[in-house]
Amino acid sequence: MLYFENDYCEGAHPAILKRFIETNMEKLPGYGMDRYCLSAKEKIRAACACPDAEIYFLSGGTQTNAAVIAAFLKRYEGVIAASTGHINGHEAGAVEYTGHKVLSLPHKDGKLSADTVRNYLQTFYSDENHDHMVFPGMVYISHPTEYGTLYTRQELSDLADVCSLYKIPLFLDGARLGYGLASPASDVTLQDIARCTDVFYIGGTKVGALCGEAVVFPKKAPEHFLTMIKQQGALLAKGRVLGIQFDTLFTDNLYLEISKNAIKTADRLKEALRRKGYRLLIDSPTNQIFVILENAKMKALAQSVRFSFWEKYDGNHTTVRFATSWATDMEEIDRLISLL
Amino acid sequence: MLYFENDYCEGAHPAILKRFIETNMEKLPGYGMDRYCLSAKEKIRAACACPDAEIYFLSGGTQTNAAVIAAFLKRYEGVIAASTGHINGHEAGAVEYTGHKVLSLPHKDGKLSADTVRNYLQTFYSDENHDHMVFPGMVYISHPTEYGTLYTRQELSDLADVCSLYKIPLFLDGARLGYGLASPASDVTLQDIARCTDVFYIGGTKVGALCGEAVVFPKKAPEHFLTMIKQQGALLAKGRVLGIQFDTLFTDNLYLEISKNAIKTADRLKEALRRKGYRLLIDSPTNQIFVILENAKMKALAQSVRFSFWEKYDGNHTTVRFATSWATDMEEIDRLISLL
Amino acid sequence: MLYFENDYCEGAHPAILKRFIETNMEKLPGYGMDRYCLSAKEKIRAACACPDAEIYFLSGGTQTNAAVIAAFLKRYEGVIAASTGHINGHEAGAVEYTGHKVLSLPHKDGKLSADTVRNYLQTFYSDENHDHMVFPGMVYISHPTEYGTLYTRQELSDLADVCSLYKIPLFLDGARLGYGLASPASDVTLQDIARCTDVFYIGGTKVGALCGEAVVFPKKAPEHFLTMIKQQGALLAKGRVLGIQFDTLFTDNLYLEISKNAIKTADRLKEALRRKGYRLLIDSPTNQIFVILENAKMKALAQSVRFSFWEKYDGNHTTVRFATSWATDMEEIDRLISLL
Amino acid sequence: MLYFENDYCEGAHPAILKRFIETNMEKLPGYGMDRYCLSAKEKIRAACACPDAEIYFLSGGTQTNAAVIAAFLKRYEGVIAASTGHINGHEAGAVEYTGHKVLSLPHKDGKLSADTVRNYLQTFYSDENHDHMVFPGMVYISHPTEYGTLYTRQELSDLADVCSLYKIPLFLDGARLGYGLASPASDVTLQDIARCTDVFYIGGTKVGALCGEAVVFPKKAPEHFLTMIKQQGALLAKGRVLGIQFDTLFTDNLYLEISKNAIKTADRLKEALRRKGYRLLIDSPTNQIFVILENAKMKALAQSVRFSFWEKYDGNHTTVRFATSWATDMEEIDRLISLL
Repeated sequence: MLYFENDYCEGAHPAILKRFIETNMEKLPGYGMDRYCLSAKEKIRAACACPDAEIYFLSGGTQTNAAVIAAFLKRYEGVIAASTGHINGHEAGAVEYTGHKVLSLPHKDGKLSADTVRNYLQTFYSDENHDHMVFPGMVYISHPTEYGTLYTRQELSDLADVCSLYKIPLFLDGARLGYGLASPASDVTLQDIARCTDVFYIGGTKVGALCGEAVVFPKKAPEHFLTMIKQQGALLAKGRVLGIQFDTLFTDNLYLEISKNAIKTADRLKEALRRKGYRLLIDSPTNQIFVILENAKMKALAQSVRFSFWEKYDGNHTTVRFATSWATDMEEIDRLISLL
Repeated sequence: MLYFENDYCEGAHPAILKRFIETNMEKLPGYGMDRYCLSAKEKIRAACACPDAEIYFLSGGTQTNAAVIAAFLKRYEGVIAASTGHINGHEAGAVEYTGHKVLSLPHKDGKLSADTVRNYLQTFYSDENHDHMVFPGMVYISHPTEYGTLYTRQELSDLADVCSLYKIPLFLDGARLGYGLASPASDVTLQDIARCTDVFYIGGTKVGALCGEAVVFPKKAPEHFLTMIKQQGALLAKGRVLGIQFDTLFTDNLYLEISKNAIKTADRLKEALRRKGYRLLIDSPTNQIFVILENAKMKALAQSVRFSFWEKYDGNHTTVRFATSWATDMEEIDRLISLL
Repeated sequence: MLYFENDYCEGAHPAILKRFIETNMEKLPGYGMDRYCLSAKEKIRAACACPDAEIYFLSGGTQTNAAVIAAFLKRYEGVIAASTGHINGHEAGAVEYTGHKVLSLPHKDGKLSADTVRNYLQTFYSDENHDHMVFPGMVYISHPTEYGTLYTRQELSDLADVCSLYKIPLFLDGARLGYGLASPASDVTLQDIARCTDVFYIGGTKVGALCGEAVVFPKKAPEHFLTMIKQQGALLAKGRVLGIQFDTLFTDNLYLEISKNAIKTADRLKEALRRKGYRLLIDSPTNQIFVILENAKMKALAQSVRFSFWEKYDGNHTTVRFATSWATDMEEIDRLISLL
Repeated sequence: MLYFENDYCEGAHPAILKRFIETNMEKLPGYGMDRYCLSAKEKIRAACACPDAEIYFLSGGTQTNAAVIAAFLKRYEGVIAASTGHINGHEAGAVEYTGHKVLSLPHKDGKLSADTVRNYLQTFYSDENHDHMVFPGMVYISHPTEYGTLYTRQELSDLADVCSLYKIPLFLDGARLGYGLASPASDVTLQDIARCTDVFYIGGTKVGALCGEAVVFPKKAPEHFLTMIKQQGALLAKGRVLGIQFDTLFTDNLYLEISKNAIKTADRLKEALRRKGYRLLIDSPTNQIFVILENAKMKALAQSVRFSFWEKYDGNHTTVRFATSWATDMEEIDRLISLL
């Protein structure tokens, strides 16, 4: 059985496990105060060219989204997101559980445009009754998006401008950030992201770590963020578990290097799909490929390949998703191609 | 520097890291559906003699407490706890963050007695105005307690009877459960706990794991518990991280075996303290030792040993805590003793 | 200045104030246990032909919506509503503040169709990942809707069938229910509503009361609803304030009788608008009239009439709302017509 | 049957109902923007000698407590209160429902001393682990307290000093404020309260109104307080209902004048109780009298008088509460005395 169902089906990059073993019996302080956390933070600051960034490590994407959003928002504020945003549909209402509304707006290929956000904010503040409504208090975007698409540097910058104008923070969910940074189609660097956003996270779970996301506040973290993540049950006693992983991933550019594999394998697959006449739902430049399959073909393929059902396309077709990752073997791609 | 500050300052038991490496490139389903999670659950069910138990793995203690409590309680209910209960003072209000009150009651050496609980419940229901009050919806105890003390089998059974009478669940926080089970002073087994409680957890973070707690529902889990832990940001994508650890800890009785080390080393330390005339705040039979030190002695000791400040005892004395663990070396104990 | 801005700009129907005076010095128990509350409940049960209905009185619409929704929903559930639903846009996120998502669906003239709901529920349960999503736990509709439109008996019945099939309650927000019941265009009676829904409320604030909404649970109220409304700060000490008002409104059919005035005055206004060639945004059969005005005309009119800005229609036109009420004088209508 | 069960068993002061009738058909803007609200605010500002105070009107005590506390507290903060504080025991967990812990401290006769608060704050901030605890973010006191006792001007001032030192607001719950101000035993004026606190409320429900509490922010209200009360379902559409009541109560000193009646009648009752040899649990200088009755006497009395059960005193005695109010007739007192 070939496995293209998601990008978190393996363990960790071997270098991480090696470091776990090397450091295992060192006695270290808890809660992220150990030297591996400190070292990882320094390396991430350097990679972001952001020497004053405050950085925290959390365990997973939904946790990180809820922690960041609930830390920034005032009680009467909600978070703007594309209707396709992960927080809007696939996190079991984690944001609402903290008391805040997700203000969902129309998207294009999973992306939220600065114009859409600006219009919403203008309309909101020009409505005389806006005191009876949820104040927009943050903009959430994902990069890559849930459709694998990427913002351009200009688009990010435009979003940053709107946010700045209305004095609300811009939050970039980078659960798959490595795959965005490694995509040759992108002109966006880690430094660009650090410059344009008020907070973002560098996803580890889907890019080589066992678990873990590095939350970066390029300007300033909300006061008492540590207490707030404790309050949400998101503070690991052995912070080293996350520190060691990110310290490894940000040594010798490992994070970016291993991300490239996902792009290369995805590109080979996409090329084969096109060559064989398959239609792609969307031309994603990262590690998620959305293909429209005839239902009969889909069923046949499911005998030997695991992939994600995405949505019904029409009466005879279904959109499915193939995901590659840092760990995908090119040989697996070739076997998949031979089955198409 | 000797390190007795807590029981989570090392990494994981080496057998766990070994298994991480062995299983690393296996492609496994996410969210706790992998075969290591399934196997770990089977082994825990066997250890609990509870073949129908439902089991979930979470990452840390505060997270587990908040998830379990908020899953069981109805909206108008609070959780009864000793005033010294971890949820009442040291979890940053994580329970209240989910909307529920901690109904704190007096303790004895960190323990909550069945009588105290019964009196509270009787008084509550005989108060004509109780519809204007928080309904008691669960009893929370920790075993070992925050003072390292242990419930007897009879005490647990009495608490279970009160809970059963008032139809509210009994929840046992076992963050340090291994050290309770391994204490020769205790007559309580894992099976006793499974029989007496409605939910409890087997602590991994403090007993050999990198992170992880195994939540056991001996009778029945609340409906849609998986969705609720997702909603609280507590669902790891790579559930294998927790499954592999507990599968290892519950192979060949490893969990109990490594727990014994904490008891043996703590016992040696206690004996030495007594011999040297130190007063213990409490006679804890597990891995936490609370000693009353003269302030001058405390300062001197702090030059070469890390321990926890607990509380001011009087003008000249302070209570401090020494913690041992699965990883404490007997040689470290001897060096500490030589400094006392 | 003529005043058509809303339907809550006057005090109460004079019969209510008269009763306040008559009963003022009677010493009565608090929290809704007084005899006026009991009498009002009996009268409402009779009007609903629902002898076992449980009834509670609350103070306002947003409060009632939040109280009812948060009382019914399980922690992992959200409430389905039309995107135009009052709870979705104009209640400052009161539902989300209780931890629940509003699952907004497309509407037609402010109405949610049974088909739309059924499709959503089918799609939700056929999605393999629905455990990672917010469970739909209730359907919210308003009648009249925010656009003044009305469900037919068949439409209500169809919605009830879908809800019944999926075992989720149907909640009808009747903030303006009197105006719906009094509309000759409607075939829906109070008894129909009691039969089709699991909970609904009879709006008082907009229909003759100083404040107050009567929440009716035709089958059964959620357990400990009183405690939950106390918990939300919605329990009035002097429950008589609400009981006396509803007892008066449900004596001699007063509620329905005074509602008719809003319909008659609105009808006269609509007829005049049509005659004078104005376009209506929607053909509402109740007390809210949405007219498309040229901007110049709108500005001129605003000199002598207060009305609500609704939304920009196009570059030169704006949609505004005129509302009539139980207290609108026909003479005021005629003066307004003369200004059009 | 004589009725001394509470101080909210009658309707409103007749002057209020008269004003309701006089103003009933005036068309007024909603949500507290009407001229009666504005006028009431001006009068309250004058009475407080606090020309810049921001004032809002809410409907009841629990609602006001939850709204004020949840508006001031940051997410990681709790509110300090006496263990006997109304918010701690008798509001169904309304504060916790908003996500915040009540940090309960020991009281003396229902009062919280500046020393108790200072010690708590000092201990909290000197605890190295306080980042894992709930930050104290406000001090809540009630005046009169739940035991009818009163703070002195000096005590209030001392509490204000501690709060100021730690930069946390002081909130005074004045559900029965009139009875405190009218007590000859008190040296505290409305101006003192406005000077010492950051927020307080002037209780209407128990002092002559049908419903309503006037929240006064002597310095500054939290930003977007209106939206927050809307979010909690606490914003009345017809704000006039509250405005007219407080405008009346603050005309010609009515609030204070009618409060005196509760004190006079309570004093007569206390004197009689003492004369007849009854023991008082506490020497309350306001309108609540706590008497220790023999159980047999209590039962006999209950045949013709309604009073509140307070708590078991010993095997043969019970503490009960008699409450007087603005509406208590001296003749009723005399009849009660004759039964004692």
